[in-house]
Amino acid sequence: MKVIDKEYLNSLSNQDRARLINSLLGVKSANLIGTQSKSGSTNLSMVSSLFHLGASPALFGFVIRPDTVTRDTLNNLREHPYLTVNHVCDEITEKAHQASARYPADISEFNECLLNVDYLDKHIAPFVKESKIKFAAKFIREISIPENGTHILICEVLAIFMADDYLDEDQFIDITKASSIGVSGLDQYLKLEAIGRLSYAKPNKNLKWLKPF
Amino acid sequence: MKVIDKEYLNSLSNQDRARLINSLLGVKSANLIGTQSKSGSTNLSMVSSLFHLGASPALFGFVIRPDTVTRDTLNNLREHPYLTVNHVCDEITEKAHQASARYPADISEFNECLLNVDYLDKHIAPFVKESKIKFAAKFIREISIPENGTHILICEVLAIFMADDYLDEDQFIDITKASSIGVSGLDQYLKLEAIGRLSYAKPNKNLKWLKPF
Repeated sequence: MKVIDKEYLNSLSNQDRARLINSLLGVKSANLIGTQSKSGSTNLSMVSSLFHLGASPALFGFVIRPDTVTRDTLNNLREHPYLTVNHVCDEITEKAHQASARYPADISEFNECLLNVDYLDKHIAPFVKESKIKFAAKFIREISIPENGTHILICEVLAIFMADDYLDEDQFIDITKASSIGVSGLDQYLKLEAIGRLSYAKPNKNLKWLKPF
Repeated sequence: MKVIDKEYLNSLSNQDRARLINSLLGVKSANLIGTQSKSGSTNLSMVSSLFHLGASPALFGFVIRPDTVTRDTLNNLREHPYLTVNHVCDEITEKAHQASARYPADISEFNECLLNVDYLDKHIAPFVKESKIKFAAKFIREISIPENGTHILICEVLAIFMADDYLDEDQFIDITKASSIGVSGLDQYLKLEAIGRLSYAKPNKNLKWLKPF
């Protein structure tokens, strides 16, 4: 068994340590976040740190690193507190990864990565047309993390857009029907295959595998 | 296309809304968090909200809901600020899901779910023997989220334990070698299949697929 302690971590270059720690927590969702600046420039950034905060109200969070390419997203949200979250599906994996390149603020990743802008209903932030599960959200507030200068952004879901048949009758969204992918570390992409759904767990009650639909 | 707006969300039962919003963000990592109370009782809880905060220092966060079964984890960490994080692998999916049942604080999920406790080096929190990628961490501080009464816990990685061959020469951990799984929503489990790793993205440079090893 390999043991990686603090001494080992400290001996690594920053890049190697980033690769190691980024791949430690397991699979992450791959999402493209769309924003718009005050002057109307669109921006896309690849984010793998989204986490569920609650369903009532529908809240989630994600992490912004101001010293990286995601700073344009933070700057845009401070001016215009609206964003879109667009699942990366198998078909656009390479285009989505290209959105993590460091483009100047006035260059739109939509153009550079050959992804199409879409505007849905009255939402002012740009959606990714090719994405099959996407939602509009409002940026509520930011939490500064002094330990490393990052920011956790708290957001509320406003409206969700997807094909009818992704939603099961019990309101579960089957992301495998949309070929949504996962990411591990900074650059490994993963296909998702449903094992199935398990029944609600209770003490002293046997679990059942529900239909995998 | 199905449009789910706030009116639709408000019309749902709490359970249906929880299923919908929990499955909205995409795939999540499935981890068992091990803690120990002051009196020495061990506790395991299934957590799918872990997110990467930074590599230097090696920080991550996760969300605790005090009105659910995860409150034992929070209570233990306030007394004893040490925890383990254990990847759920394919072989223990059902046992890990069973750990989400609401057991009393003095009942150990290790016993109830037939998972073996392991103690590694000097770390005082209990590891899951069956887990193939696991790490010890220290609970640093908590951030209260007044919008819904949850807490974000900030933790630092202390030491990582896994098989030698999961770690590539560039310090990337290949979680697919450990049959780590993903979870979507509250109860759908997902196998992960590597598509490959993509080269570092730069403006005006073509991406390459690296060896999938």
